[in-house]
Amino acid sequence: MRTVHVNASTPYDVLIGEGLIDRAGELTAKVVKPCRAVIVADDTVDELYGDRVQISFSYAGFDVSRWTFPAGEASKNLGTLSELLEELAGRRVTRSDLVVALGGGVTGDMAGFAAAVLNRGVRFVQIPTTLLAAVDSSVGGKTAVDLRAGKNLAGAFHQPSLVVTDTDVLRELPAALRSCGAAEAIKCGVLRDPALFDLLEGGDWLGDIDEIVVRCVAYKRDVVARDEFDTGDRAFLNLGHTFGHAIEQLSGLTVSHGEAVAVGMLMAATSAGCPDDTVLRLARCLRANGLPTHCPYGAQALAGAALSDKKRSGDTLTLVLPEAIGRCILRKIPVGALEDWFARALAAQERLAL
Amino acid sequence: MRTVHVNASTPYDVLIGEGLIDRAGELTAKVVKPCRAVIVADDTVDELYGDRVQISFSYAGFDVSRWTFPAGEASKNLGTLSELLEELAGRRVTRSDLVVALGGGVTGDMAGFAAAVLNRGVRFVQIPTTLLAAVDSSVGGKTAVDLRAGKNLAGAFHQPSLVVTDTDVLRELPAALRSCGAAEAIKCGVLRDPALFDLLEGGDWLGDIDEIVVRCVAYKRDVVARDEFDTGDRAFLNLGHTFGHAIEQLSGLTVSHGEAVAVGMLMAATSAGCPDDTVLRLARCLRANGLPTHCPYGAQALAGAALSDKKRSGDTLTLVLPEAIGRCILRKIPVGALEDWFARALAAQERLAL
Repeated sequence: MRTVHVNASTPYDVLIGEGLIDRAGELTAKVVKPCRAVIVADDTVDELYGDRVQISFSYAGFDVSRWTFPAGEASKNLGTLSELLEELAGRRVTRSDLVVALGGGVTGDMAGFAAAVLNRGVRFVQIPTTLLAAVDSSVGGKTAVDLRAGKNLAGAFHQPSLVVTDTDVLRELPAALRSCGAAEAIKCGVLRDPALFDLLEGGDWLGDIDEIVVRCVAYKRDVVARDEFDTGDRAFLNLGHTFGHAIEQLSGLTVSHGEAVAVGMLMAATSAGCPDDTVLRLARCLRANGLPTHCPYGAQALAGAALSDKKRSGDTLTLVLPEAIGRCILRKIPVGALEDWFARALAAQERLAL
Repeated sequence: MRTVHVNASTPYDVLIGEGLIDRAGELTAKVVKPCRAVIVADDTVDELYGDRVQISFSYAGFDVSRWTFPAGEASKNLGTLSELLEELAGRRVTRSDLVVALGGGVTGDMAGFAAAVLNRGVRFVQIPTTLLAAVDSSVGGKTAVDLRAGKNLAGAFHQPSLVVTDTDVLRELPAALRSCGAAEAIKCGVLRDPALFDLLEGGDWLGDIDEIVVRCVAYKRDVVARDEFDTGDRAFLNLGHTFGHAIEQLSGLTVSHGEAVAVGMLMAATSAGCPDDTVLRLARCLRANGLPTHCPYGAQALAGAALSDKKRSGDTLTLVLPEAIGRCILRKIPVGALEDWFARALAAQERLAL
């Protein structure tokens, strides 16, 4: 078992290793005195791991119950959140109790948000069951649900008390879900960690999954430590997201977040004039991980969709641009110039046959 | 105009004076650069003051719109909150925009909560239109909505950017609403401020309303500054609330919060053995302000209802007990002893014919 210590406003540990899901209760009991605990999971994950996690918490002395909701991003809304909050309050969950988020990003974001606002803050523990949740959404303290106007528009900053990542669970993931997480891991490599990129490059890295998760979590931990409330450095984590968000929007969300970030990263690289050999190396790495490299939309449509992003404030936006594997820069551009950046990326895509 | 500066994690001013509602936009523009602003009010308050506030913000350069909901505590739930959040997001309110809460505690708590979670935090300005909101809920940064299991069970800590209190508006209040606020003001007097108590004692204090609001806000400011996140000293503010909460619950919420706190304060005083002349003086003051002094419920029922309070953690609870006008103490008691405290208060009530 490896430990990454996160020094946020409320410090906590991320535990990473094999077989941890059956030790989740015991590991939690070391940081949270046994109390009432509600395990929140979607119906798919509950079916797969709900019993094991409940037994583990029960055995460790917690008074455990479970609450499930229909799997899928469509559940991540105010309606499901409201049901969850009413249910937690109905079960008399108080500030000295615990919410356990068992699942991927949807569950972690929504259960974390419920924990953030119930009694103005109860503790929660995350047990990520997807690679994306393990490397990305389980670190940083951002919780949220979607609104009709866009993703993650209502939320809170709330740090978990503990994150327990079982890498056996991650190894059992269907390939498509693994690809999603790989996109975020590759992102960390491109941002700062060439050795991580090397590990991911062949696409056959199940044997190195502990090391990959540790490196991603440690990187995100460092960024978040410098900028917990998302006013500066955390912008780097948006690599591939401005371009990718536009693709996701235009596809009507049929392109997954990971796929969109993959293409988005590549477009960020080409639009900034990153050397061809670096671009091609990134493209090969993405493909080896089952991720797409081609953007089928035009520059004007992309710019329009990108500008519906909530993160834009005022007349400029900040792009994250790769200069090499392991080195990126921030660049503030006028909103009106964005279409040109998309156009440059699309021209490079054609030239390099991506 | 008087100013109380609140030094919370995000500092802000509470402005108190005559005719401020028509200057709200101008005063806000001094701390928030004109931007998109949405005025949130219940339909009653919107009818009374919506136009004036909109004109004021418009004139100061804000891009203003309004959103209203049905007046009453019954609106303060996740359904109304969800509508408000969807509406704010649909109007593209971003982190650089503003929510204006125009109204009493329900509006301030709910609009403040919406502002706290929209984009994980947008700024908000409070314009309290009830005495209770002016002296109590507009200071302290607590925002919330009710859940089926109880009041204020889902919420956040979120400080306003400015509070604008127009004392002309407070003077126009119906007597019943004024009594509600008077109960909280009297509470401040009993807790620490004998001079404030003197002002309120005759019940005829409309001429001193600026001074009363300033003293209450300054007191609450001091307590909150020592304990922003409600882990210690803020417990003093619960004077009358443990006893009062029980009365409110048993009445099926037909007894108002202010009325319940009034009787609750008196019970706290008698249960702790406060001298008879002090108790009788407090009772006269409450009656002069249109507030009740008699509790019609039995000790056992009261204890049961009080223990459904979310603030209780574990096997003890903390009572706030008046020793004299202007001096209270905290006393931790075992949960099981609460019924005896109620019984003592009821015996004193009978003996003193309250």
